[in-house]
Amino acid sequence: MLIQLFESCSPQQLDSIVKRVRELGYKPTFVKTFSNRYLVCIGTAEVDIRTIGTLPGVKDVHVVEDPNKLVSRQWRVTPTSIDLGDGVTISRSQFTIAAGPCSIESEEQVVKTVSFLKEQNVSIMRGGVFKPRSSPYAFRGLGIEGLELFARHCRANGIKVVSEVMQVSQIEPMYPYVDIFQVGTRNAQNFNLLDELGKVNKPVLLKRGMSQTLTDFLASAEYIFSSGNERIILCERGIRAFEKEYRNTLDLNAIPYLKDKSHLPVFCDPSHGIGIREYVEPMALAAQMAGADGVLLEIHETPEKAVSDGQQTLNFEEAQQVFRKLRMLENMNIDMMG
Amino acid sequence: MLIQLFESCSPQQLDSIVKRVRELGYKPTFVKTFSNRYLVCIGTAEVDIRTIGTLPGVKDVHVVEDPNKLVSRQWRVTPTSIDLGDGVTISRSQFTIAAGPCSIESEEQVVKTVSFLKEQNVSIMRGGVFKPRSSPYAFRGLGIEGLELFARHCRANGIKVVSEVMQVSQIEPMYPYVDIFQVGTRNAQNFNLLDELGKVNKPVLLKRGMSQTLTDFLASAEYIFSSGNERIILCERGIRAFEKEYRNTLDLNAIPYLKDKSHLPVFCDPSHGIGIREYVEPMALAAQMAGADGVLLEIHETPEKAVSDGQQTLNFEEAQQVFRKLRMLENMNIDMMG
Amino acid sequence: MLIQLFESCSPQQLDSIVKRVRELGYKPTFVKTFSNRYLVCIGTAEVDIRTIGTLPGVKDVHVVEDPNKLVSRQWRVTPTSIDLGDGVTISRSQFTIAAGPCSIESEEQVVKTVSFLKEQNVSIMRGGVFKPRSSPYAFRGLGIEGLELFARHCRANGIKVVSEVMQVSQIEPMYPYVDIFQVGTRNAQNFNLLDELGKVNKPVLLKRGMSQTLTDFLASAEYIFSSGNERIILCERGIRAFEKEYRNTLDLNAIPYLKDKSHLPVFCDPSHGIGIREYVEPMALAAQMAGADGVLLEIHETPEKAVSDGQQTLNFEEAQQVFRKLRMLENMNIDMMG
Amino acid sequence: MLIQLFESCSPQQLDSIVKRVRELGYKPTFVKTFSNRYLVCIGTAEVDIRTIGTLPGVKDVHVVEDPNKLVSRQWRVTPTSIDLGDGVTISRSQFTIAAGPCSIESEEQVVKTVSFLKEQNVSIMRGGVFKPRSSPYAFRGLGIEGLELFARHCRANGIKVVSEVMQVSQIEPMYPYVDIFQVGTRNAQNFNLLDELGKVNKPVLLKRGMSQTLTDFLASAEYIFSSGNERIILCERGIRAFEKEYRNTLDLNAIPYLKDKSHLPVFCDPSHGIGIREYVEPMALAAQMAGADGVLLEIHETPEKAVSDGQQTLNFEEAQQVFRKLRMLENMNIDMMG
Repeated sequence: MLIQLFESCSPQQLDSIVKRVRELGYKPTFVKTFSNRYLVCIGTAEVDIRTIGTLPGVKDVHVVEDPNKLVSRQWRVTPTSIDLGDGVTISRSQFTIAAGPCSIESEEQVVKTVSFLKEQNVSIMRGGVFKPRSSPYAFRGLGIEGLELFARHCRANGIKVVSEVMQVSQIEPMYPYVDIFQVGTRNAQNFNLLDELGKVNKPVLLKRGMSQTLTDFLASAEYIFSSGNERIILCERGIRAFEKEYRNTLDLNAIPYLKDKSHLPVFCDPSHGIGIREYVEPMALAAQMAGADGVLLEIHETPEKAVSDGQQTLNFEEAQQVFRKLRMLENMNIDMMG
Repeated sequence: MLIQLFESCSPQQLDSIVKRVRELGYKPTFVKTFSNRYLVCIGTAEVDIRTIGTLPGVKDVHVVEDPNKLVSRQWRVTPTSIDLGDGVTISRSQFTIAAGPCSIESEEQVVKTVSFLKEQNVSIMRGGVFKPRSSPYAFRGLGIEGLELFARHCRANGIKVVSEVMQVSQIEPMYPYVDIFQVGTRNAQNFNLLDELGKVNKPVLLKRGMSQTLTDFLASAEYIFSSGNERIILCERGIRAFEKEYRNTLDLNAIPYLKDKSHLPVFCDPSHGIGIREYVEPMALAAQMAGADGVLLEIHETPEKAVSDGQQTLNFEEAQQVFRKLRMLENMNIDMMG
Repeated sequence: MLIQLFESCSPQQLDSIVKRVRELGYKPTFVKTFSNRYLVCIGTAEVDIRTIGTLPGVKDVHVVEDPNKLVSRQWRVTPTSIDLGDGVTISRSQFTIAAGPCSIESEEQVVKTVSFLKEQNVSIMRGGVFKPRSSPYAFRGLGIEGLELFARHCRANGIKVVSEVMQVSQIEPMYPYVDIFQVGTRNAQNFNLLDELGKVNKPVLLKRGMSQTLTDFLASAEYIFSSGNERIILCERGIRAFEKEYRNTLDLNAIPYLKDKSHLPVFCDPSHGIGIREYVEPMALAAQMAGADGVLLEIHETPEKAVSDGQQTLNFEEAQQVFRKLRMLENMNIDMMG
Repeated sequence: MLIQLFESCSPQQLDSIVKRVRELGYKPTFVKTFSNRYLVCIGTAEVDIRTIGTLPGVKDVHVVEDPNKLVSRQWRVTPTSIDLGDGVTISRSQFTIAAGPCSIESEEQVVKTVSFLKEQNVSIMRGGVFKPRSSPYAFRGLGIEGLELFARHCRANGIKVVSEVMQVSQIEPMYPYVDIFQVGTRNAQNFNLLDELGKVNKPVLLKRGMSQTLTDFLASAEYIFSSGNERIILCERGIRAFEKEYRNTLDLNAIPYLKDKSHLPVFCDPSHGIGIREYVEPMALAAQMAGADGVLLEIHETPEKAVSDGQQTLNFEEAQQVFRKLRMLENMNIDMMG
């Protein structure tokens, strides 16, 4: 059961509601986000929700049977739309392209990429400055200085910045520079990080853990939401399965499932999802037709020289073609639905 | 190494070629299909293939590094096209829709489905009469009588028949009625069945084993080809992974991979691939954009009454919409490529 | 619900029982095995089974909630014991060792192995003469001649023969020579083969499919049992998972689960389960402690010269040590339980 | 290549060695642990290591081909032994039992468990005070106060404390109370946490990620080691596979593999590995025979009342029996090896 509260709901009113909910056999958790207030009620007893709906302070009340409540579409039927400012919005009504290198490497690289993206009307750039690497001896990224130059050039060109945060202590220094905090697959159940990102007033792009069930994936999003941040983007990026020919196994089944169960926007990362440059284009197009609201693409002026992930990175020419096709498909999609 | 032989290649010439191949450290296997003759040579020694190319009887010779030779695109760059007669062709240059019920249940069902497919310009109907069921107590299909009535109505309407063969002894009785023999996921490594289907002059639609690597999947196709039958359609139908929310995990990564490695047409079965009716449409469209040459769709006039797989079966109205969108996408695909 | 019938149950009595069962909302299947008669009743209605128990012809009746009925321990609490003759018995009260080469290669090999096994008091020899191989160009076994010589030497020395059957047409020619028919992992859901093996009066060793759930594995055993053959040995041999360092991932969790759910003996094949010679010993011992009733071990006088699976095959010296440790553990196990 | 340095190695000597290593085409990383100094050299060039071995400051030099160097057994053939004080040592020469509840719940629970463990001669107690939970609404543990009372009773009885750390900020407050920091499966690739634990002079028990390859698991251990902490215990706790009948799929194959590749002690957690109370005993015994150096067992006086994981938790009577059998096996193991 999910209770939406009026902003004007007084402490006394809240106490009464909480008391009532407990009497009904539910365990209430009060949630205050940057925009709303909720009472998430966990329990299984049958309840006539109208008896709640009329209590002072209650704005609305819904039965939500999904295990994850706040991210469920059972109460919020209008999909969540995330406004990044400057006319850049992530939502189900338009397809979003975010592209950029795996790692930020140099100012020259940033300048070239920003210029390419601007020319291509791509308004979100991805790029890592803190890199999670299996081996401690691998390149771990340029850090905050890299992020600063990344952000500087993006802002000068109206491009939004998405970059991975790996630990709580990075949130504060990253905050001035990113428009979206990205959580990587290895941190998908780093619950403390999720909690802290819930307290930050910037959107979070949450990648699915590589062996995370969809219920647990939504639970990870529920962590962020219940800590206060409603602006979450889910991202499928490939699961760990038995096939050895590709880096990961992109689970596009997840796209229609997540869009059906949750009101959050759902992205796809085909670059990691297959991990082979030649096959990124068909998987990006497939992701769009599966219903993804956006894609994250790894691009680089000279992929063969990239410090990381070059084998799955598109060059600018290839990227341009993928962008063109994704946009043709988007237009067509609108036609088909009409 | 793959050697194509002239049809006129004499036994003596063949002996000489075999002898030469053995001297080079390769193990030769002579393959005679319904249309061609080959010498498949397994080995790793470095060879100047020109010294083979000039031998009498040799039509052409190719280095094929892939472990599976005859199905590899390394020697046959023109994709295989399969002519089913009456203008029905399976190939990479047009998108094929095959649809029908999981199980053939009754004449009435067949009549209605055939009529619907004809109206929709769908020229291949799928339907099972021998059903592989996990439990011995489940419905196992109508058998040959079911197939006979299935084929009778299809033929009267110019529709081709695809149906699953479960064992060698079914090949002969099924032969007069089917246009394509289907091999199910549980028989993907039933090597004797594959061998025998290699001796049959009808196309085979081979479904990927539910935990079969792509290399092994191509090896299963190689069994059929090397036993004599070149007309094989590969079909991705979902793998077994950890996610419990859907029946199988559709591995669309397999589509661009298989199209790149093999010259055979590649289909997709989104109905089994996700197993949830509401999500079949986006997965069918995604499969097409991933590059599939065709789809296999489960449809039924009243899915809720189907004897098997009703939960993943589209009704006629839903099917009609999927067909329409698949065709719009096909047209668009042609535009995009142009 | 499972009804055991008296052998003396007349057709009229059977009809009455069937009628009654149908009235209760259950679907009955009559099963006649080499030793017993049953009525397997599929349904979910609540029934007071005493009303069945008193019907003429009924020996006993049990509620069996497991999806697979005949193989369930819910009605047969005494574990199944399989007598192979000559004092060789497979059961839960003693640990069985079966060993031998992956493939039968030559008479010399058979003679040496038989002699070694006899010396070691191992009374079951495994060896393949029909080999399921991923590639059509790999060695496929010596066939029936190989089996004949394999059996000849075993019989002369009181050793029982277990060998894999790959297709229905092999059952009859193999019948005179084998003591146990083995079904390989790729045929674990070859339902026609299972059905036919149900009609054969020889035990069947059924290997788990490499991605088969345990419920489906028991369903495969149920096929054999419901077709008439009660003498089935279940065998865990490794599943397909993500780890690339070993050939398969031995799922020892399956051992206590299967022993708890089924009355059938449960074996383990650590050779395939890990696929690395150096690690076979610890996994064999682990299988025994997990509760396996026996192991299947690949051994060869000179593993490095074996035509197949040499990398996972123990030489005689290594095998001798594993046998010794398994027997010490068996004795100890008895002590521990005491 | 791994270079061990003398403690007396001067900065000038180090510079010379680094210079030489770079000339040879290797990338050196200087590592200083609580007990030793190393130069980890990443590269593939062929080197005559004797030319390094004679440089001033070099104690020893080894070719280490494994991707993870410091944790490899290729240079340190004597297995790592971890002394916890008070005569409690973790090593390959004796079997370690660690047991305790999933969550610390109350002082009464701690007192009873400590008393039981003392009586059973079990010298390590596990218990969580920070609980990683999929859902944000589940019990998250008693926190530092819980740890304080947990540690107080353990210390008064000579029992060592192992407890999970979930984030960097918990390390300092936990430090006074724990004898071993545990890293949970969801944090197995939380690289910042691993880095920070490398700087702590207390042993770390590192659980394998639920879909972590063994190479990546060893890489996670390499993170800790290369940050300064050599005292690491690897722990297999079940992987995520397709089987739904148990919580996780215990991968005992990992035990002989890890013991062969690494010098670190290898534990097993059969409670999580199968997740079903009745099957924990056979899996614990199996783990021991697979070669595990210790087990982690969940026990509770009244598992049915445990706040978490009750379904996989042994009661004291069951635990006593498992302890007894594990010790009998340990003695026997020594006999068998003799």
